[in-house]
Amino acid sequence: MPVLTFLSDYGLADSYVAEVKGAILSLDPAAHIVDVTHLVPAGAVASGAYLLGRACRRFPAGSVHLAVVDPGVGTSRAGLAFRAHGHLFVGPDNGLFSEVLDGVEGDVIALDEPGHAAPTFHGRDVFAPAAARLLMGYPPATLGHALARAPVVLPQLTPFHEGPVLVGEVIHVDAFGTLVTSIPSGAVPDGGLVTYHATPIGPVRRTFADVASGQLLALAGSGGRLEIAVRDGSAAARLGAGLGSEVRVGPPGSPPGAPHG
Amino acid sequence: MPVLTFLSDYGLADSYVAEVKGAILSLDPAAHIVDVTHLVPAGAVASGAYLLGRACRRFPAGSVHLAVVDPGVGTSRAGLAFRAHGHLFVGPDNGLFSEVLDGVEGDVIALDEPGHAAPTFHGRDVFAPAAARLLMGYPPATLGHALARAPVVLPQLTPFHEGPVLVGEVIHVDAFGTLVTSIPSGAVPDGGLVTYHATPIGPVRRTFADVASGQLLALAGSGGRLEIAVRDGSAAARLGAGLGSEVRVGPPGSPPGAPHG
Amino acid sequence: MPVLTFLSDYGLADSYVAEVKGAILSLDPAAHIVDVTHLVPAGAVASGAYLLGRACRRFPAGSVHLAVVDPGVGTSRAGLAFRAHGHLFVGPDNGLFSEVLDGVEGDVIALDEPGHAAPTFHGRDVFAPAAARLLMGYPPATLGHALARAPVVLPQLTPFHEGPVLVGEVIHVDAFGTLVTSIPSGAVPDGGLVTYHATPIGPVRRTFADVASGQLLALAGSGGRLEIAVRDGSAAARLGAGLGSEVRVGPPGSPPGAPHG
Repeated sequence: MPVLTFLSDYGLADSYVAEVKGAILSLDPAAHIVDVTHLVPAGAVASGAYLLGRACRRFPAGSVHLAVVDPGVGTSRAGLAFRAHGHLFVGPDNGLFSEVLDGVEGDVIALDEPGHAAPTFHGRDVFAPAAARLLMGYPPATLGHALARAPVVLPQLTPFHEGPVLVGEVIHVDAFGTLVTSIPSGAVPDGGLVTYHATPIGPVRRTFADVASGQLLALAGSGGRLEIAVRDGSAAARLGAGLGSEVRVGPPGSPPGAPHG
Repeated sequence: MPVLTFLSDYGLADSYVAEVKGAILSLDPAAHIVDVTHLVPAGAVASGAYLLGRACRRFPAGSVHLAVVDPGVGTSRAGLAFRAHGHLFVGPDNGLFSEVLDGVEGDVIALDEPGHAAPTFHGRDVFAPAAARLLMGYPPATLGHALARAPVVLPQLTPFHEGPVLVGEVIHVDAFGTLVTSIPSGAVPDGGLVTYHATPIGPVRRTFADVASGQLLALAGSGGRLEIAVRDGSAAARLGAGLGSEVRVGPPGSPPGAPHG
Repeated sequence: MPVLTFLSDYGLADSYVAEVKGAILSLDPAAHIVDVTHLVPAGAVASGAYLLGRACRRFPAGSVHLAVVDPGVGTSRAGLAFRAHGHLFVGPDNGLFSEVLDGVEGDVIALDEPGHAAPTFHGRDVFAPAAARLLMGYPPATLGHALARAPVVLPQLTPFHEGPVLVGEVIHVDAFGTLVTSIPSGAVPDGGLVTYHATPIGPVRRTFADVASGQLLALAGSGGRLEIAVRDGSAAARLGAGLGSEVRVGPPGSPPGAPHG
């Protein structure tokens, strides 16, 4: 009894999410569909990639993950179906699968597009039927042909070094206003010092309770990335931060210095 | 294994949606409930009617559709149960079913009201039990008596002609800020020109990518209605538009002229 | 086929809710999970307690209710599992279960904490596995040891008397802007007069339609508490009200007088 998860930027105020589910249930009436989120900021592919990457691994092997953050709908970007890390994935080829493509098993398939697909709603007319068929046991290869090139991977999800300093960026702001960065927690050296633009945040703490209420802190987030938070508050509001803002980690005892820009 | 869909204006911040589901599951523990949306603007019956109309047809025949946008709760408006287009429907008689009443099969039933119903929460105490019973196979006629008059249909969902010009209005604003109009895409003549109040929008395009980023365009929407959108942006914000705003379609080569009001 | 309900303040824009569900489904792939709400205001334990209390009783006996509004995550506050009123409950010991603890059956269990639990995400790593095990039939006592003291109960959920005047507070503001108070509707004397701070609201009405559109009114709410609403409007906006605001009920014919503060 595998599960089908669904992530999008469709919002919750329209019928789009339900229409996708209806299309799936029309093919597989027993489908068990679980929402990841539909409030990815419109077109924010990197944020969607991060959320999909951390959520999918919590589901049983064999789960099907439908993900649609697709500002290029109606253009020539491909639709994908593939297996990775023991799970199955369906959605647009625009970097949304950046966090799982390291574990691809078999070919990445470029989906055939049904002739009747609405040019503005591939989630319902292209990706939903493909996801339903994967859930019913059809292999990815039955849904199209092997993609002739490598699928898109987003560079901003991977931090880089400037000498001893690790440089990343904010890839997601959560509902509490916590800033999730591209920097894997495991890449931060013991005692490393975190800076957000000109604001020193300090070393990585274990939990919110390690600082006083209202204080900024750095955390090893529950999704495996370095995070910047305010205890009982919003780091996004405090720092005026948003997607793409730079975050730096300097070695122990050495503040990482002035950021770029 | 039929599905029960649920649409309302209850919002997602309270326990109302869950209480309705609990009431259904207390009668039918195997019920498979799928949310359409619960973020219909409070009391916006026309918007709810549009969303229900386009969503329900994506589900398998035999599905039960519970819809509650009910500013008249506690007044003498009737509650309805009926079959249409091979589906079953339950909710208040206030126009919410305007988009499906053309396909009624059998009698439209006015629901009996349980004596213990909370006067402010018929969704839970009147409509949920009725929906559960339809899902369990009880025919609509077992839930009340035939409605003695025609059910309510909203006039604003149907556009009208002024000479060669087709005149409709905005019936829904989606989460991307796209304006959905009452005008069926199929009623727009080839090359017809769309105007929103004094703003010319132009001919109907195939998809967002047919204009530059940030440009206004008219589209044949995925729900069968003419839409006005901004590529990578919000038409509602650009035009200051909302529910009820007038939209006109003139014949090819002929701008539809100044709108009313 | 029991149901697992889930209430939190995680919001809907992140992957947190889905990760909890994935953790549950990894243990019990057949789990039937129903959301109560995930939009409890961040850290608003009293509001969460009210919503959980009114929602859980609508589900069949034997349901498991997972509730996580947990500003103290990572501190020494206990995690709880217990049976009450024929239902099962899991979550933090911070008052979130105030509305159901009067019906405890057997011991209240303090949960064992897995060594690998992320210090900021007990919902996924501590409470979700416990909830899954309850759903699978493990008794609460298998998940930890009996709590050595009484679980936390929030005082603000219970009104008090000042002479003949009943004094309570706003414990929840719903999506329509209706103010839910701590005062049980059954505790209001016939003809009792309601006051919000210096604003007289009047006697308790049966339904919205008992006053004109735009008027303030007091209601016996569908959740068993006294509510203050505006017909076709928002009492929260009208009164500038929020959580904790004082509400008073005086005896018939006798306005309750000036409020405190």
